[in-house]
Amino acid sequence: MNSYCLATYRCYDEKADFAKKATGIAVGLTVGSWTELPEAQKAQMEKHLGKVVDIDVHEPANGEPASARYADIRIAYPDVNYSRDLPALLVTVFGKLSMDGRIKLLDLSFSPAFLSGFAGPKFGMNGVRNLLGVHDRPLLMSIFKSVVGYELPALREQFYLQAAGGVDLIKDDEILFENPLTPLERRIEVCLSAAEEARARTGQKLLYAVNLTGPTFGLPEQARKAIRAGVNALLFNVLAYGFDALHALSADPEINVPIMAHPAMAGAFYPSPHYGIAAPLLLGKLMRLAGADLVLFPSPYGSVVMPREENLAIKHALLTDRAADYVYGDYDADVNAPKLAASFPVPSAGIHPGLVPLILRDFGGDVVVNAGGGIHGHPLGTIAGGQAFRQAIDATLQGMTLQDYALGHPELQAAIDAWGVRA
Amino acid sequence: MNSYCLATYRCYDEKADFAKKATGIAVGLTVGSWTELPEAQKAQMEKHLGKVVDIDVHEPANGEPASARYADIRIAYPDVNYSRDLPALLVTVFGKLSMDGRIKLLDLSFSPAFLSGFAGPKFGMNGVRNLLGVHDRPLLMSIFKSVVGYELPALREQFYLQAAGGVDLIKDDEILFENPLTPLERRIEVCLSAAEEARARTGQKLLYAVNLTGPTFGLPEQARKAIRAGVNALLFNVLAYGFDALHALSADPEINVPIMAHPAMAGAFYPSPHYGIAAPLLLGKLMRLAGADLVLFPSPYGSVVMPREENLAIKHALLTDRAADYVYGDYDADVNAPKLAASFPVPSAGIHPGLVPLILRDFGGDVVVNAGGGIHGHPLGTIAGGQAFRQAIDATLQGMTLQDYALGHPELQAAIDAWGVRA
Repeated sequence: MNSYCLATYRCYDEKADFAKKATGIAVGLTVGSWTELPEAQKAQMEKHLGKVVDIDVHEPANGEPASARYADIRIAYPDVNYSRDLPALLVTVFGKLSMDGRIKLLDLSFSPAFLSGFAGPKFGMNGVRNLLGVHDRPLLMSIFKSVVGYELPALREQFYLQAAGGVDLIKDDEILFENPLTPLERRIEVCLSAAEEARARTGQKLLYAVNLTGPTFGLPEQARKAIRAGVNALLFNVLAYGFDALHALSADPEINVPIMAHPAMAGAFYPSPHYGIAAPLLLGKLMRLAGADLVLFPSPYGSVVMPREENLAIKHALLTDRAADYVYGDYDADVNAPKLAASFPVPSAGIHPGLVPLILRDFGGDVVVNAGGGIHGHPLGTIAGGQAFRQAIDATLQGMTLQDYALGHPELQAAIDAWGVRA
Repeated sequence: MNSYCLATYRCYDEKADFAKKATGIAVGLTVGSWTELPEAQKAQMEKHLGKVVDIDVHEPANGEPASARYADIRIAYPDVNYSRDLPALLVTVFGKLSMDGRIKLLDLSFSPAFLSGFAGPKFGMNGVRNLLGVHDRPLLMSIFKSVVGYELPALREQFYLQAAGGVDLIKDDEILFENPLTPLERRIEVCLSAAEEARARTGQKLLYAVNLTGPTFGLPEQARKAIRAGVNALLFNVLAYGFDALHALSADPEINVPIMAHPAMAGAFYPSPHYGIAAPLLLGKLMRLAGADLVLFPSPYGSVVMPREENLAIKHALLTDRAADYVYGDYDADVNAPKLAASFPVPSAGIHPGLVPLILRDFGGDVVVNAGGGIHGHPLGTIAGGQAFRQAIDATLQGMTLQDYALGHPELQAAIDAWGVRA
């Protein structure tokens, strides 16, 4: 039986015959030509032919310019045409087509056969919670304030102050590469020793995600080197290397630590309404399919802004266990629908403790609250910064307002005085 | 002495203080914070600090909306902050920043030190010409008409008909992946035997670029396998794997055949005026730096359109030997300026013989004329299609109009009758 992956496009055109355009895509990106084929050959080629599934035309409303005319087009591509890897699928559905006028790739769904090539996140949300032993609250992550140009003692001090405030995860800056001041193995050594020191104070476990960088074909060995040095998580700039590199790293049994996907360069793809790849696909589905255990993406709250509905669509893609969100075609949901572990959503940028109630309302409990300036910039210092976040999380889970909870918690009070509370 | 790479951005904002914004970028993407540092630390951190080189603000002209306000901002990033690879440089200059409002990466220039990590194309334009023994005319390339779903005999026949028409290069379709009907090694075998057969007729050499696909970390072995099977060129969907994968493949001494870069997915990056990476950087400089011997990009003539000035800027980036186009900073042009071999420009899509005079006027003689439908769709068949192109090239080089030359050349005449001539 034929199986298909499904691509959804939004295609803007002032006057195109969208039905004709859709057929052109379905034929052009598969068998190349169709109507002129002899009947006998059609029978043989049928299983390679793309199918137009539906076309939803939006004519401009009154007052809208003609350029606002678009169609959402869904096309099913036969699995038999591409190998079971993301470069092959992406080049098929959006290789040449990406350059063909105002067209954006909105979504992909996958056949059970294609999905069977993807194990998904090795740890996923629950695996990360298990490693930390924290199941009853959102996690707290912090980001180094400044790393470039700093030496090991300064890095260690920053690490300790973050850890001592009660954060669960600390990640390298994505722009910290292999360098003589804080080389990978030494950095891991001093940061883990700082983690141990903080643990004596907090009683908490902690994951440190070191930045996995360097030449593409050296990444697996670089990851193993970091793991041999004792690191318990990896940060990875997925889009600088392609989704398949993440997939291979995640599938490697020797790389037995969670991988955190950084969205660096994602803004080159998703913000335009007319071009590129939509954020919920780019930073949601594809990251999870490729095996990211945690996924960072711009929050709707801070300086680097993404619309709230797009944010929630990313979250949904990372967490959903509804087979129909990922699977296209006939399948028995109980038997055949592949189960991908959830990826932990990490909305990032511009986060301070006063936003915690809003984050938990938008994301529920399954979220990593992630802060940089909101921790390091705390008026009472970095340790108090972490504590204020933990207090804000506790308050929200207990159904109290931050203002009420802050009466007995000076760190939270100081954060509120500095940054306010957003409802 | 410090050395720097230079990034140029176009940043749209209705009311931003662009000087403040530029400083925020230069500090935020390097040392993280600056003004609050103690003076002693500033001295130590200075060499890690990004520098605003210039800011060119374009206020909206009369009649333009406020949203048309933009600035071109140039920022120099210290080499000491990143490793000498393209993922590190791209994540530094456009990782987080890509998500920070309406901003597009227009250009990069590189320090001599950074450039020294890049040998550039192994063959380049002259190396490809040497392999073919053709130095006195533009090359002609053709693309299979339909490949998906076809078996080896049909592929072989298509190959032979293209080769027999006098084309210099034949490339796989970029959507032809490893598949049971035409597996890599068998495909190479039958296509090369067809090439030999055609050579007996044409006396010409020919390069066949087989599509290099599959899992990222298997690419070097897959390339070696193709080369062991006798193939003499590779096609590679660079953007599905990242520039560093191309760089490593090109730098691999065992991969001793030209690599042709396909622009699949490039439309997800370059067409928006507000977001992404400009085409001359994406498909010009970065492809050449990473080692592409030939680079395909959308022509300004056909169905998949790119503005002419953008096309010519790509061509310039692929061919220029002016050190200042690539190198930033002080250097002795004769001694230190790295010399990258030129990459062969291959403007593609919508090409028919009647466009040849225009292509040669726009691109000069150092271009690969690349056609698919313009060869296979020729009224007298595929062989005549190749011949008509060769005739159009000969005519143009001899300073004759196509119409005059066609009087003695029925293949060219038939092409003109079918598609016309564009001046």
